[in-house]
Amino acid sequence: MAKKSAALRVLLDSKASILMEAHNGMSAKIVQEAGFAGIWASGFAMAAALGLRDANEASWTQVLNNAELIADAVDIPVLLDGDTGFGNFNNVRRLVQKLGQRGIAGVCLEDKSFPKANSFSAGRHELVPIVEFSGKIRAALDHRVDHNFCIVARTEALIGGAGLTEALDRAEAYREAGADAILIHSKRSNAEEVLKFADRWGGRTPLLAVPTTYPTAPIESLFGAGVTTIVWANQIFRGAVIAMRRIARQIHAQKSIAAVEEDIASIHDILELVDTGELLDAEKRYGLSLNSK
Amino acid sequence: MAKKSAALRVLLDSKASILMEAHNGMSAKIVQEAGFAGIWASGFAMAAALGLRDANEASWTQVLNNAELIADAVDIPVLLDGDTGFGNFNNVRRLVQKLGQRGIAGVCLEDKSFPKANSFSAGRHELVPIVEFSGKIRAALDHRVDHNFCIVARTEALIGGAGLTEALDRAEAYREAGADAILIHSKRSNAEEVLKFADRWGGRTPLLAVPTTYPTAPIESLFGAGVTTIVWANQIFRGAVIAMRRIARQIHAQKSIAAVEEDIASIHDILELVDTGELLDAEKRYGLSLNSK
Amino acid sequence: MAKKSAALRVLLDSKASILMEAHNGMSAKIVQEAGFAGIWASGFAMAAALGLRDANEASWTQVLNNAELIADAVDIPVLLDGDTGFGNFNNVRRLVQKLGQRGIAGVCLEDKSFPKANSFSAGRHELVPIVEFSGKIRAALDHRVDHNFCIVARTEALIGGAGLTEALDRAEAYREAGADAILIHSKRSNAEEVLKFADRWGGRTPLLAVPTTYPTAPIESLFGAGVTTIVWANQIFRGAVIAMRRIARQIHAQKSIAAVEEDIASIHDILELVDTGELLDAEKRYGLSLNSK
Amino acid sequence: MAKKSAALRVLLDSKASILMEAHNGMSAKIVQEAGFAGIWASGFAMAAALGLRDANEASWTQVLNNAELIADAVDIPVLLDGDTGFGNFNNVRRLVQKLGQRGIAGVCLEDKSFPKANSFSAGRHELVPIVEFSGKIRAALDHRVDHNFCIVARTEALIGGAGLTEALDRAEAYREAGADAILIHSKRSNAEEVLKFADRWGGRTPLLAVPTTYPTAPIESLFGAGVTTIVWANQIFRGAVIAMRRIARQIHAQKSIAAVEEDIASIHDILELVDTGELLDAEKRYGLSLNSK
Repeated sequence: MAKKSAALRVLLDSKASILMEAHNGMSAKIVQEAGFAGIWASGFAMAAALGLRDANEASWTQVLNNAELIADAVDIPVLLDGDTGFGNFNNVRRLVQKLGQRGIAGVCLEDKSFPKANSFSAGRHELVPIVEFSGKIRAALDHRVDHNFCIVARTEALIGGAGLTEALDRAEAYREAGADAILIHSKRSNAEEVLKFADRWGGRTPLLAVPTTYPTAPIESLFGAGVTTIVWANQIFRGAVIAMRRIARQIHAQKSIAAVEEDIASIHDILELVDTGELLDAEKRYGLSLNSK
Repeated sequence: MAKKSAALRVLLDSKASILMEAHNGMSAKIVQEAGFAGIWASGFAMAAALGLRDANEASWTQVLNNAELIADAVDIPVLLDGDTGFGNFNNVRRLVQKLGQRGIAGVCLEDKSFPKANSFSAGRHELVPIVEFSGKIRAALDHRVDHNFCIVARTEALIGGAGLTEALDRAEAYREAGADAILIHSKRSNAEEVLKFADRWGGRTPLLAVPTTYPTAPIESLFGAGVTTIVWANQIFRGAVIAMRRIARQIHAQKSIAAVEEDIASIHDILELVDTGELLDAEKRYGLSLNSK
Repeated sequence: MAKKSAALRVLLDSKASILMEAHNGMSAKIVQEAGFAGIWASGFAMAAALGLRDANEASWTQVLNNAELIADAVDIPVLLDGDTGFGNFNNVRRLVQKLGQRGIAGVCLEDKSFPKANSFSAGRHELVPIVEFSGKIRAALDHRVDHNFCIVARTEALIGGAGLTEALDRAEAYREAGADAILIHSKRSNAEEVLKFADRWGGRTPLLAVPTTYPTAPIESLFGAGVTTIVWANQIFRGAVIAMRRIARQIHAQKSIAAVEEDIASIHDILELVDTGELLDAEKRYGLSLNSK
Repeated sequence: MAKKSAALRVLLDSKASILMEAHNGMSAKIVQEAGFAGIWASGFAMAAALGLRDANEASWTQVLNNAELIADAVDIPVLLDGDTGFGNFNNVRRLVQKLGQRGIAGVCLEDKSFPKANSFSAGRHELVPIVEFSGKIRAALDHRVDHNFCIVARTEALIGGAGLTEALDRAEAYREAGADAILIHSKRSNAEEVLKFADRWGGRTPLLAVPTTYPTAPIESLFGAGVTTIVWANQIFRGAVIAMRRIARQIHAQKSIAAVEEDIASIHDILELVDTGELLDAEKRYGLSLNSK
């Protein structure tokens, strides 16, 4: 487990790395299989996969259990989108301890109040006072079970409309509190304000950006401006949703599954993805003969 | 909740109905949206979505919690693929009580031993003695919180290679024990043995079939032979898997998300699927003004 | 389950009723066995039993699962001490739905901010704005799965030092929002302020009091002043703690369990408390012969 | 966490050690406070505390979560009574991984079939084939996250009436499979058969005994015969039960809590047991000023 947090630290400390979203064990396996080096366990996608809103409808232990299944499914490190930390500094430090035990490599905390609203939805986006959020970061740092466990501080100042200066002030405060990296979030349809932030940030810490709303911004331009890690935060889930919709509608319209066979993974593929072969081998190794029971 | 079990009973008692797989809350919403009238909460797909094997690696409370999220996500009834019931008659009756409380409309139990092996994987497929499985059915019936909650008895006799006579004998015993319906499972690449079973069964109870390995068999032929409910048991999940793989590989190859925007659901679509509008309305209704906190 | 909420409503609507604390399934069985008619599932005792602080260290789903085990253990109704509702109105309404499904008869919500501090510990005791808490009450009422499910509004105004007038104003606002009953909490060593509150409340709703810090106040005097339900909120747990401490120290000192045999329940008693006889009977009824497996 | 498993290993490898039962976080704190060096997380007591039977009514993840809370509550090592491992070798190895991650120091597995019956209750006590149980031990050993994590093999041969030779044969097979220690269980009212077993075992491995039914046997005699660890497996819980019953009955009879104040722990004691002071200190350290939110 300590290896996973060390691997995440290497990723975050590199000049140009990528985290790809996963929302459950299967998507994590697929992300790893495709060659990605690290996973963003998206709060938005995990909640939506459960059928829930990105508003802390799932309890923190439900999120923890999901994150554990994701981490268990792969060898690459997982950074959990930990929302606000699900309460105050005390909830944060408990979360951090539990994540560390279960093999999650790091957590990203954001400076909104609990319960959170999704960054892309309408509605309130209150920021908590800087001193309060800095306390959360310090509590998180002090309660890591492994010193490589990564604490990423995310400011929602741009999301909430508080402006670039506020965003920079907050980022600096979080850096001073000890955050391993800063995540600057924006919901603009271009990268402009993120690029400005990166420029003025000037490499004080690793810097993560999440180009959900500015997907056409070349990663080279982001990396060039000082972003060090790109988070593709929900595309795998969104690909699953559109496919499930299409398949569901087609089957319903045709009253048949015959025509979709080409458009769905085979049972064999799925048995392989969850490594059923390992289980059959293990059955032999651990002596469960057919007549043993 | 009682309405949901009544709705499932109507479906199972009809001459030609369909259950479509879902494996989490989001897929359930999509299945409902496509127009299906009922959901099969697939053990195989739920496990694989978690990154686990279809071998009772998830605990029964993890399965219960997943089923609850599925039921919460939709208005249509959910039949849980309850594997072997996760132990003996006592585990079965506890499961049935808990499912009923949480709004799941029915459970399908199979006559294999715990922990189960997936029907399509190699390895052991032991059947438990008829008397033991009949006891499970009776225990399930006696502990429903709602008399409409449906108990479907699934025989794996054909999967295990025990033959048609054994399958019929078992189905008859389960019917006598009180099962609301029989599910006859086959892994042949055509419907032949299922059609034979249906013919000899002669409509003694509702009859479910799962044409995963014989997808080209027209549902009319199955319905014509006496199958009353078709279970499309995993196609939605398999559609998600193939799509996630494709998207993950494409993004990794292109080092960009720009090109996949057309192939993934929009953020807006997902916010709508989880009915974020209801939450925003409720914020107004329950007085969370922007300045209230 | 609807019967349990109806039973709680009868208790709360009566002029002189008592709720006794339980913190897990076993203590609930013991409370029922002693003859009490209703249970207070204490947040403080449930947390401490888990080894946690009364500061929302347990997640709301952990609390929900504990409350479910308590409700499952007995036939008498359970009122859950639901703290602040674990977030905002949205968290509250989800909690209320889930409690109703799982057979808990009602919930008590308090007007502090999340995460809460225990009423008897030092530290902050902020009250949330009246409009916010009233919104929680209305959300709770609108999302009951059973109209008898009871919503008790607890004001911590006296705990926080806000005074009697504030307490009365808040209680009135919560009554107007629809609360089924008011709980007035005090940490004074006598009942004076509670008696004053009750007098000025004048029976507008059922009124609960929790004489943890004023144990010598006769219940007749409380009932006489207008309190309608007494909550003995933690004595069973505290009795367990002192006994466990004594037994642990004695065994450790004597390096023997011989001398404590008289001071501990017999194995037989415990097997009876969890009704092992029912399980053995059921084994016969559901056909688990010794040779069946 | 690795320190805890190392500490348990030292205990098991010593010539005369004691494990004292705990069933939740609070009882664990009390056991540690009394001076004991290690904890037996009793399956029987944990289940009964939840209001459940010792028959695998709780899921393995519920047991895991309880064990985690126990381990979190103390610094001394915890040996989990893991029943049969909750399934086959695959369930066992998953359990072992999860226990190791969460800071539990070891697990005791017994050679009965799942779901188990309590050793002291009537009813079936089937033993699984030696080869099957040995496979579980090997699977457990191969999947430890920490090589000090202890695997204790418990034979129920004497409980099931299979006799001393069978017990010795099984113990030897389990030793050969790699078990770190053997637990020999007996429900006789004296230590005779345990002493015989210990004598014939001859110190091949550490040997645990559980004198629940022979409490008057001096530990010196057991240690003298070759038992190396005594497990006092349920006395703390049983002390709690008798006390809770007495308190509940007294309060109910007297309609007052005034008279029990001397017989229950103070609120202050409980706040101290869960170290509320640490939380108040942390509030200062992490900057939660009264006006910060």
